[in-house]
Amino acid sequence: MASDMTLYWGAGSGPCWRAMICLEEKGLSDYNSKLISFDNKEHKSDEVLKINPRGQMPTFKHGNAIVNESFAICLYLENTFKGQGAKLLPDDPVQQALVLQRAVESQNIREKAAFGVLSYFFRTKPEDRTEAMLEEKKKTCHEELQIWEGYLAKLGDGSYIAGKNFTLADACTFPFIATLVRMGFNMSRYPHLAKYYDLVKDRPCVKASWPPHWKDTLNKDVLKDI
Amino acid sequence: MASDMTLYWGAGSGPCWRAMICLEEKGLSDYNSKLISFDNKEHKSDEVLKINPRGQMPTFKHGNAIVNESFAICLYLENTFKGQGAKLLPDDPVQQALVLQRAVESQNIREKAAFGVLSYFFRTKPEDRTEAMLEEKKKTCHEELQIWEGYLAKLGDGSYIAGKNFTLADACTFPFIATLVRMGFNMSRYPHLAKYYDLVKDRPCVKASWPPHWKDTLNKDVLKDI
Repeated sequence: MASDMTLYWGAGSGPCWRAMICLEEKGLSDYNSKLISFDNKEHKSDEVLKINPRGQMPTFKHGNAIVNESFAICLYLENTFKGQGAKLLPDDPVQQALVLQRAVESQNIREKAAFGVLSYFFRTKPEDRTEAMLEEKKKTCHEELQIWEGYLAKLGDGSYIAGKNFTLADACTFPFIATLVRMGFNMSRYPHLAKYYDLVKDRPCVKASWPPHWKDTLNKDVLKDI
Repeated sequence: MASDMTLYWGAGSGPCWRAMICLEEKGLSDYNSKLISFDNKEHKSDEVLKINPRGQMPTFKHGNAIVNESFAICLYLENTFKGQGAKLLPDDPVQQALVLQRAVESQNIREKAAFGVLSYFFRTKPEDRTEAMLEEKKKTCHEELQIWEGYLAKLGDGSYIAGKNFTLADACTFPFIATLVRMGFNMSRYPHLAKYYDLVKDRPCVKASWPPHWKDTLNKDVLKDI
């Protein structure tokens, strides 16, 4: 029973999706789900600001426990519901180290794709953009993805992002990979990331939390030459 | 015994300091400490790149476990040495939620101070800087610090950053607060942050890991009007 849990979230937000995946994996899918409209500025409502002074998504409450940072929500759910649902953080120190490392490190994908190329493309006025700067940002994003391509190559076919099981590292990383795909990045250049995407995209926890508007609108092609 | 642990670190780096504080708190102060010279590009040496493909500090190895992201190192040490030294992550869900939230959220201080004002001041060519942009970055930094001032005001005098005990949240937040002080920010405008700084600065784990060159060089005054 997760009737004392509320997640405020925005559609298509990678950080929100991380939390939603963990809620599903821990068997807490009956949480109160409040989809927030950014257009209507609902993330800056009194209801949200009372528990999240930055007015950002996700915002999460479980009884009197409040956690808003996406990775902190994932850790909180794993620690609080240790014996329930999937085990998302292995006990073995070497494996745990890898899961924690990849989970935090995945923020780099977001920074270099979402805050790098995508923000430059969508949020910088065309007259302020230069082709050279766009190319530089694409190159930085490509170099980041090559690091992950290397990680997966080393782990071997059929691996999750930190080994043979689905973990917190996947909950944290997959939403950012799926965002790249949504934005049309050329997966044929990253065969290991492509296989990883295929492995995870149909997992029940991921399907259950897939961004609703992605299902019936076309992918974009901003990242097609990355 | 921490003879099978190696931390590569840079002097004055907030993320490195986080890891060093946790190592001290967990009674692991005899780890192998490798001070890296950024000037000599030692962070891009083969020795480092072999375990940290981004060549960033900190870089941490414990036997075969490798963790490089600072918060991941802190979590790894707390989980792996649970019964040893200070307890840095409370079991109580409400308290744990707060500790995890503040630990991750502290990255905002770094982003708005180090990557905001300080980077603009030190790394942007004077001819590319504008007074208006500098003021905007200072304002953003001030607003962030006001959030933390509010958190501490609510907790009451003598509190650590997430309650009455020193936790992972302090290990993660204090280095960024101390960096603000090092850069001369006006603590008299933030009485709760000033008390917090005084509470933590003389803690043995913090003194033992204080950036060496800070001890015998003067503070700067870049942030004096924030």
